[in-house]
Amino acid sequence: MTTRADAIALDAGDPLASWRDRFVTPDGLVYLDGNSLGMAPRAALERLAEVAGTEWADGLIRSWDHWLDLPRRVGDRLGPIIGAPPGAVVVHDSTTVNLYQAVHAALALAGAGAIAVDRADFPTDRYVVAGVAGATGREVRRSLDDLDGVAVAVRSAVDYRTAERTDIAAETNRARAAGVVTVWDLSHAAGAVEVDLTAAGVDLAVGCTYKFLHGGPGAPAWSYVRPGVTVDQPIWGWFGQADQFEMGDAYEPHGDVRRLLLGTPGILALAAAEVGIGHVADAGMAAVAAKGRALTGFGLRLCDELGLDSPTPRDEHARGAHVAVRVPDADASHDALTAGGVITDVRRPDVIRLGCAPLTTRFVDVWDGIHAVRGTVDQTAR
Amino acid sequence: MTTRADAIALDAGDPLASWRDRFVTPDGLVYLDGNSLGMAPRAALERLAEVAGTEWADGLIRSWDHWLDLPRRVGDRLGPIIGAPPGAVVVHDSTTVNLYQAVHAALALAGAGAIAVDRADFPTDRYVVAGVAGATGREVRRSLDDLDGVAVAVRSAVDYRTAERTDIAAETNRARAAGVVTVWDLSHAAGAVEVDLTAAGVDLAVGCTYKFLHGGPGAPAWSYVRPGVTVDQPIWGWFGQADQFEMGDAYEPHGDVRRLLLGTPGILALAAAEVGIGHVADAGMAAVAAKGRALTGFGLRLCDELGLDSPTPRDEHARGAHVAVRVPDADASHDALTAGGVITDVRRPDVIRLGCAPLTTRFVDVWDGIHAVRGTVDQTAR
Repeated sequence: MTTRADAIALDAGDPLASWRDRFVTPDGLVYLDGNSLGMAPRAALERLAEVAGTEWADGLIRSWDHWLDLPRRVGDRLGPIIGAPPGAVVVHDSTTVNLYQAVHAALALAGAGAIAVDRADFPTDRYVVAGVAGATGREVRRSLDDLDGVAVAVRSAVDYRTAERTDIAAETNRARAAGVVTVWDLSHAAGAVEVDLTAAGVDLAVGCTYKFLHGGPGAPAWSYVRPGVTVDQPIWGWFGQADQFEMGDAYEPHGDVRRLLLGTPGILALAAAEVGIGHVADAGMAAVAAKGRALTGFGLRLCDELGLDSPTPRDEHARGAHVAVRVPDADASHDALTAGGVITDVRRPDVIRLGCAPLTTRFVDVWDGIHAVRGTVDQTAR
Repeated sequence: MTTRADAIALDAGDPLASWRDRFVTPDGLVYLDGNSLGMAPRAALERLAEVAGTEWADGLIRSWDHWLDLPRRVGDRLGPIIGAPPGAVVVHDSTTVNLYQAVHAALALAGAGAIAVDRADFPTDRYVVAGVAGATGREVRRSLDDLDGVAVAVRSAVDYRTAERTDIAAETNRARAAGVVTVWDLSHAAGAVEVDLTAAGVDLAVGCTYKFLHGGPGAPAWSYVRPGVTVDQPIWGWFGQADQFEMGDAYEPHGDVRRLLLGTPGILALAAAEVGIGHVADAGMAAVAAKGRALTGFGLRLCDELGLDSPTPRDEHARGAHVAVRVPDADASHDALTAGGVITDVRRPDVIRLGCAPLTTRFVDVWDGIHAVRGTVDQTAR
């Protein structure tokens, strides 16, 4: 049996261990929900105080000189995390809005046909697809197996429940061969696993920044557009206008990803998000992803030892950075865990999700968490 | 001639004077751009430190229990400022996104016909209308004079250049009589002038919070939907879902304004914005608007005394809370003003805009500002 001391030894040998010191880590908390809301970087709190207390309060409107370009600058910071070159990513709005834009852009590239999204995908993706389909008179397909008659596919790179990964390159190519443009949602992948959008030939991708990227609660999302792809989407924003301050008659947007920018960017949130994104970029995705695999592998080993069932893939390259554990009563387990200071996610009816954010989660957290889940199951069974 | 001492005397008699102490007021700055970015409330900086340093960093995912409802709670704080009842306003996304939703909702209410927006309206409004019209095959009318054949009108309540007000009730009624649904943009009106959306019978309105409402740079915007009006718009967001955490198959949104909520709300920015919005609400719009009229009236009197031309209406009830001054070379004047610590807006080719944010702008600021504009004109003319 793996002991808690084994977990502590693994932490001692973790090359990324010191990154945790850069985050606020509340005493006595076993935090395994960094896949829903990442821990706060200390420097993000300082940056927020600076952007509000100095740039806003003292600089006032003059600060727009350096704020204007922030969505693109933070996008360039995020680029290496997802294999995007400079100028291909902007950080803006929300996953919902960005996905809405991307689906429309994909439809404009693809031509006639249905929009496909898996029936088990996250509600955001399913509802956005349903809305666009309704407004454009398209059919919705609720499976990605058969792409015949499909124009656009919306896919998550990592399943938000089980952590199953989809092979982005293979599935992008399969879709392209069928004449389908794929929009990738990387919300549970960016900052968790290695992704190379360039090598995979991805046209359009979106994701959030508040999970593995430690961007803050409701931090702005991002959009990726492959260089050379022109996006055509119906929300025409002043911040997407190429010569914005000419305030010209006609909408004449940027030719690249900046065309997706809409209204005045939320500067406070963007400035805070830049820090967490920067931490992940600086730690390097090869090391970050390796630790994610090690943490989740450790968690799955503990599940085996403790007789807990998990739908999370055993192949370390086939999963993201969270572990799903099946329990008889997810709500009861979740309540007991929370009361005991073990913070997880519940996915009804029978899944407890433990997020392993590589910069902040320790092996001992995983040990404590999995053992605590086992304890709640025993308690529930009594 | 009105002297600087006269201005100081007016400040001494100003019942709202003490509100300025609640804001960060940089030394030596004559700030007349609160109509573009309002000054920072001291309590907003404190609130931001609390929401980031305590609610995010310590509370982590558990804080979503009280964050979830924030867009509606801040909306209810904003309601009295625009004459909206509780439950009719949500604070979310950006003016661009919210306007896009509102125009679609108006089209769904209105039926066939063109979309009208004034050719001189702010680019955000014109571009959003052009985008929706293009996507829905509607004609764009660039004037609001003749509403024949028009389905939806998009209108600003206060002109962003001249400060001219539009009579919201009269124009809503004129439009309604012609079968036209009007979407009001109150970006330059909310927090500047008294507006009663309920009495005016307005169906749909949007606005920003970073100008007269002191919400912060790129603070989230707001949407108003008249109680009883069902909005139908194509961005289907998970946060608009009535039973959000059931994660159900079908999109079954709230029946009221909450249906406009999209992705995860930006909590840091919302929490900061709540403070500024709350300050304006607590000061009370009757007093706030009266001071706006007094400040702009004082500015226009100084223009007359100094031989400066202004397109801003002389009727104090016909204008918002900024004063436009015509100058021979707006860029040259603006550069000279900025260099001298007088912060204004430039509207090319020939307008300097001086914003009078009632909670922070003093009569002496207006005196200093208008005299400084006169100085730059003299210098340019040399």
